[in-house]
Amino acid sequence: MINLYTWATPNGRKISIMLEELGVDYTVSPVDLGQLAQFSASYTAISPNNKIPAIVDSGSEGAPITIFESGAILTYLADKSGQFLAAHGQARYNALAWLHWQTSSLGPMLGQLGFFAVRSEEKSALAISRFSEEADRLLNVLENQLQAHAYVAGDEYSIADMACYPWVLAATAYLKQVLKDSLAAKPAIQRWLQQVGARPAVQRGMAIPKL
Amino acid sequence: MINLYTWATPNGRKISIMLEELGVDYTVSPVDLGQLAQFSASYTAISPNNKIPAIVDSGSEGAPITIFESGAILTYLADKSGQFLAAHGQARYNALAWLHWQTSSLGPMLGQLGFFAVRSEEKSALAISRFSEEADRLLNVLENQLQAHAYVAGDEYSIADMACYPWVLAATAYLKQVLKDSLAAKPAIQRWLQQVGARPAVQRGMAIPKL
Ligand SMILES: N[C@@H](CCC(=O)N[C@@H](CS)C(=O)NCC(=O)O)C(=O)O
Ligand SMILES: N[C@@H](CCC(=O)N[C@@H](CS)C(=O)NCC(=O)O)C(=O)O
Repeated sequence: MINLYTWATPNGRKISIMLEELGVDYTVSPVDLGQLAQFSASYTAISPNNKIPAIVDSGSEGAPITIFESGAILTYLADKSGQFLAAHGQARYNALAWLHWQTSSLGPMLGQLGFFAVRSEEKSALAISRFSEEADRLLNVLENQLQAHAYVAGDEYSIADMACYPWVLAATAYLKQVLKDSLAAKPAIQRWLQQVGARPAVQRGMAIPKL
Repeated sequence: MINLYTWATPNGRKISIMLEELGVDYTVSPVDLGQLAQFSASYTAISPNNKIPAIVDSGSEGAPITIFESGAILTYLADKSGQFLAAHGQARYNALAWLHWQTSSLGPMLGQLGFFAVRSEEKSALAISRFSEEADRLLNVLENQLQAHAYVAGDEYSIADMACYPWVLAATAYLKQVLKDSLAAKPAIQRWLQQVGARPAVQRGMAIPKL
């Protein structure tokens, strides 16, 4: 059985989407970020960077496996199941490249934009302009890719889509004021949001954790 | 034969270190970031996010393989060679987790600190304090890990060390003023920097590209 440590945020939802797509049994342990539960000693032992998501898979042969970092968890679940990630060749590395692109660029830059443009009371015009320009650049990179291909890593739906979807969706809501023109002017991203958002497993995964 | 597209920056050096560790033949195409060569049409076809590093491996069976994102490239080279990344189990996912930790957190946050604290003429006290606190938090996470283990992902030298080393080394130089107290107070990181920096392949990799 897999236990998912998560919270109601985009990085956690990547994993609940994947688990729903796979249709496997799993349990959920909410980690209340508002209560700083991510810093407890027991959770630090699972996730040394004190972030969600993390999983413990006690269903593998041998000792349970513990994994933190959404990108590593998605890769594990894909390789274990043989689904949503090609086993080798160009298709595999396209998906891993776009997965790393999401975890290293799209996620952190939209995250910083959210802090500086929305959450912080003090405003820095320098930081807001830096992160809105970078967010717009990254969304253009994604738009170009989705103009040429049905999905983020090419013709097949993969873990790269599951990594990007909760973040781009959050951008359309949470960062709407800041990014409005940028997202409205990107028809391929809009088409892809509809397409991925119509998947029942994605809808179920986006509703985890149930609090 | 593998061709590496790179420049004299930490993300590029991760890959030249790995290629030197593997002792494989490779060629180097410098991508002059100062001249904005990363935005040329020919390079965009290889690296759609317009960043270094990228590789083209024409030595595989079948068509050449093109890969961008340092994390995806390291994973490819490790799995192709069977070195510096366990094939399965906890050791594999520890290395992939710490690899994603580097590409998603340590790299981007030190990168932003470099921009706000060093490169930008205009200074934002809010941004400088945010990114120095986050850099210090991340270096504490790494220090704790290296207090408990010889290497970043555990007892074995892996692609996670190759991802972290050029960034932590850059922090000791480029971000010295900003992070001085933070790094000096971390003996396990100092020990690991010595140990990894003493490897001949790391020294050769850090000297690429030769300009
Ligand atoms: N690179 C990490 C990022 C994880 C992350 O940033 N998680 C956020 C929620 S979306 C978190 O746990 N924040 C709590 C905190 O920063 O203290 C991943 O992809 O798993
Ligand atoms: N997540 C990417 C980051 C790559 C990256 O930021 N590369 C920098 C050099 S270290 C770059 O190409 N910068 C050029 C630019 O931003 O235009 C990776 O790990 O490969």
